[in-house]
Amino acid sequence: MSTYANSRPPLASGITTLPASYYSDPAQYEREMRHIHSEMWLWAGREQQVAKPGDFLVQTVAGANVIVLRGEDGVVRGFHNVCRHRGTLLCNEAEGSFPGKIRCPYHAWTYDYAGRLVGAPHMDKVEGFREQDHPLGAVAAEVWDGHVFVNLSARPIPFEQHLGELRERLRPWRMEELVRVERRVYPVRANWKLIVQNYSECLHCPVAHPLLHEQSHYMSGENDPPQPTWMGGRMELREGVETLSLDGRSGRTCLPGLRSPQTREVHYYALLPNLLLNLHPDYMLTITLWPRGVGHTDIVADWHFHPDEIARPGFDPKSSIEFWDLTNRQDWELSERAQSGITSRGYRPGPYSNREELLHAFDRFVQERTDGR
Amino acid sequence: MSTYANSRPPLASGITTLPASYYSDPAQYEREMRHIHSEMWLWAGREQQVAKPGDFLVQTVAGANVIVLRGEDGVVRGFHNVCRHRGTLLCNEAEGSFPGKIRCPYHAWTYDYAGRLVGAPHMDKVEGFREQDHPLGAVAAEVWDGHVFVNLSARPIPFEQHLGELRERLRPWRMEELVRVERRVYPVRANWKLIVQNYSECLHCPVAHPLLHEQSHYMSGENDPPQPTWMGGRMELREGVETLSLDGRSGRTCLPGLRSPQTREVHYYALLPNLLLNLHPDYMLTITLWPRGVGHTDIVADWHFHPDEIARPGFDPKSSIEFWDLTNRQDWELSERAQSGITSRGYRPGPYSNREELLHAFDRFVQERTDGR
Amino acid sequence: MSTYANSRPPLASGITTLPASYYSDPAQYEREMRHIHSEMWLWAGREQQVAKPGDFLVQTVAGANVIVLRGEDGVVRGFHNVCRHRGTLLCNEAEGSFPGKIRCPYHAWTYDYAGRLVGAPHMDKVEGFREQDHPLGAVAAEVWDGHVFVNLSARPIPFEQHLGELRERLRPWRMEELVRVERRVYPVRANWKLIVQNYSECLHCPVAHPLLHEQSHYMSGENDPPQPTWMGGRMELREGVETLSLDGRSGRTCLPGLRSPQTREVHYYALLPNLLLNLHPDYMLTITLWPRGVGHTDIVADWHFHPDEIARPGFDPKSSIEFWDLTNRQDWELSERAQSGITSRGYRPGPYSNREELLHAFDRFVQERTDGR
Repeated sequence: MSTYANSRPPLASGITTLPASYYSDPAQYEREMRHIHSEMWLWAGREQQVAKPGDFLVQTVAGANVIVLRGEDGVVRGFHNVCRHRGTLLCNEAEGSFPGKIRCPYHAWTYDYAGRLVGAPHMDKVEGFREQDHPLGAVAAEVWDGHVFVNLSARPIPFEQHLGELRERLRPWRMEELVRVERRVYPVRANWKLIVQNYSECLHCPVAHPLLHEQSHYMSGENDPPQPTWMGGRMELREGVETLSLDGRSGRTCLPGLRSPQTREVHYYALLPNLLLNLHPDYMLTITLWPRGVGHTDIVADWHFHPDEIARPGFDPKSSIEFWDLTNRQDWELSERAQSGITSRGYRPGPYSNREELLHAFDRFVQERTDGR
Repeated sequence: MSTYANSRPPLASGITTLPASYYSDPAQYEREMRHIHSEMWLWAGREQQVAKPGDFLVQTVAGANVIVLRGEDGVVRGFHNVCRHRGTLLCNEAEGSFPGKIRCPYHAWTYDYAGRLVGAPHMDKVEGFREQDHPLGAVAAEVWDGHVFVNLSARPIPFEQHLGELRERLRPWRMEELVRVERRVYPVRANWKLIVQNYSECLHCPVAHPLLHEQSHYMSGENDPPQPTWMGGRMELREGVETLSLDGRSGRTCLPGLRSPQTREVHYYALLPNLLLNLHPDYMLTITLWPRGVGHTDIVADWHFHPDEIARPGFDPKSSIEFWDLTNRQDWELSERAQSGITSRGYRPGPYSNREELLHAFDRFVQERTDGR
Repeated sequence: MSTYANSRPPLASGITTLPASYYSDPAQYEREMRHIHSEMWLWAGREQQVAKPGDFLVQTVAGANVIVLRGEDGVVRGFHNVCRHRGTLLCNEAEGSFPGKIRCPYHAWTYDYAGRLVGAPHMDKVEGFREQDHPLGAVAAEVWDGHVFVNLSARPIPFEQHLGELRERLRPWRMEELVRVERRVYPVRANWKLIVQNYSECLHCPVAHPLLHEQSHYMSGENDPPQPTWMGGRMELREGVETLSLDGRSGRTCLPGLRSPQTREVHYYALLPNLLLNLHPDYMLTITLWPRGVGHTDIVADWHFHPDEIARPGFDPKSSIEFWDLTNRQDWELSERAQSGITSRGYRPGPYSNREELLHAFDRFVQERTDGR
């Protein structure tokens, strides 16, 4: 049995949670959508969803409706899912494949995979009309180790700057090789920031997640220093535990790029503002946050495994899927209870402990980006 | 097979759809309800619904709840459906017949069919109270060829001015003779203006309505010059097509007042802001728009036929009903997709073609009535 | 058969219902929640629900979420149901019993029944942190004849001042002895004030409640002079009627403290703002109002009987329960119709009769507390 000490630095006096308005005021929510979600890189999907030219996926976030599409040249691009004629949504499906062109279902304005307008019936009788003036609105897109990110800003910060040291640090998991085998979607009545905060400390684990704590001691965590665009760290698996699953068993070999001690750890990273990344010795869980209002967030959890394991007879991911489904539901319920309490009249900001230092860093991140704007 | 040329005048450069706020801003919606729906004549129902003294129908529009009622003197009048005592709704039913008087179900204040207060229990102990000071609030009402219109304004423009040349032009259809045989109601998640715009061009017909285009060529349309209160025109039926129905057959004789070429045409008129009138050789379709919010409109479609045909053995309106039910649903879906796209961040006003000239006229109508007010 | 005259004083000219905004404007609703519901004593439950130390009940009102709890010392106290750490709701249940302490389900901050923080894991590493600085937020609570009241104000007016003469006047019913046998909950689409107004006159009874009027003549009512915190009076049961029930029969003995004429009357008191109290010769009905928005109120009706009667073989409260369920539903429907009419454009304030004097007093109460604030 491991023993751990609370060796993190003490917290200064007077450091508290945010005022209620950060969780209840629709104007604050709009500020966050404008200055956080519309300026930062957002996880949009997996490269495997847009494997071939013409394959697309659609995401709605921060009031935008975005198509991610692989072009004939193999490049993955993002576009606003909005016809330049009368504003009609081009795609109604969450993902699929275009048949050579993108044709608006209303008046047949037609675009190629690079977003260029290549057909606009009856516009020849409009003075000065030129197809080249009406391409689809571009949205920046980048691919990293199998993940597709988009950025709604007209002048995005470079993706490498967003990623920083994470590219190197997470290389061993070779995430681009992993394949999604399960998706679960959870509509949660809580502000998106409460989900990030819940994710960023394990102080609640012995109380709320006895099974998780049984497999990975809540005091075993070490955090990286918080970065402007991400926060995270790692926790140890207890002796005899192979991976996080209902019984702590895996039945799979470790991911091929991992070395000790990664094979005995789970790494947790929150890539702000919408990707929570859980990297286990033998699988990856992605949790993505889709804010729908100041008190509502859609959450999508995807389980990804190595294709060699998937192909192996007897492959059974169920125990790891149900482990996180159970644990996630416990977290969403706590987040909903926090939302209810914080938005009730009795709430006053309360003191953080020294094991909630990432939450304080996250609060400051939110305030720096939205206060006074 | 017909051939048609795009002979409408070219459109000047820079004529575009409206900014998104016209479709997303609740304040703009309120402006429209106040300066369009509360000032113009609104279709409210059919005279056959208020055939006898005491018959009533109720409509809610622009925040008003209106009773239309035929008086003992045979005159059709409109009233606010609100008791002058404590504001209770007098009628809860969409239509019916009053039993001699209008009695409030709360405290039995009672009105005659002319809206005069004729009973108010226990008000004798209130100093200065006189029944004649508390009639029902009047709403202007007019009947035209079987249609009942109301006007919420205190000083409505004359109904004849609203109608203009339409009275003469639509006389041959003798709409007052026609009888409703079917009603379908559609809640649509789109701004009411998108429904009017969808109605006002057939450029989308070959793309969205292959069956309609098969029976009536989308380029066969001729529009009247747009008027301040209505817009519209006509399209030809293709050779061998008798009326708009699933198979182009009618099985009915033409309406008795029609002459060539009306017997080979469908006439379409949008009487702003809430009646879309489709006049076929053998039946009438009325589509009425009931805005419920900036992004929600209830739509009511009614099919009306000649009583001689209804009485004929084997009368079967199904094919014409299903034709328009199908076509309407296609239009409502496109309108909802336009609503979604226009209210997403990627939308920018786009250029109209020269076959969308009525939409530009309609946009200017909206702007003239609501901008800066 | 009784005969009654309208002997109440005449009403002066020009006394009318309130403008529509009092029933439609969310800002007015917020003013009422702040200056009425957050300053006055609110009915919260019955003492029998918190019989033993650790028993609790939870109510949400005026944006607050309140626990009422009996302490180890037998005292009933109120607390905000919000953890002082990160704002989590402590209880999710409407009532129950704590197991010795109140433990937050998120991070195990723990409070005793007096609201003192007695456990806060890992807070020892926070400079200057002291448990005694973080008790649960206190909410004033009082018990009166079996009823529990709370007050959200930091400086509540004394409960005795709220109650005034009522304590003495209602003593004979010995309400603390009565036991709840039925609860019905009604979500009503009407402003809470319309429910109070509906309750405060019986002018509508012959129109809306023929059964009630058959058992208790609508003109038999005598009102007390309206007080700043309550209004009410009594009505006579008709000859041969024992209590209000479907058939006017009781089958029960009168409550032991009652004397003539109370055994032949029903007493009705509105304790502002949320308790309507109907006291019959043999049972008590409490109707409590829980405003949920400017046009929505949850209503809870509870029937309470004497334990000796409940214990008697053949005890059957059904006829009294169904009598009021029927009568209440009639009232809720009228209140919803008033809400619809008042919030439609045709509404104008209308004149009160001299038998609606309590409504005018109530309107002034609302205006004095909210106008200009």
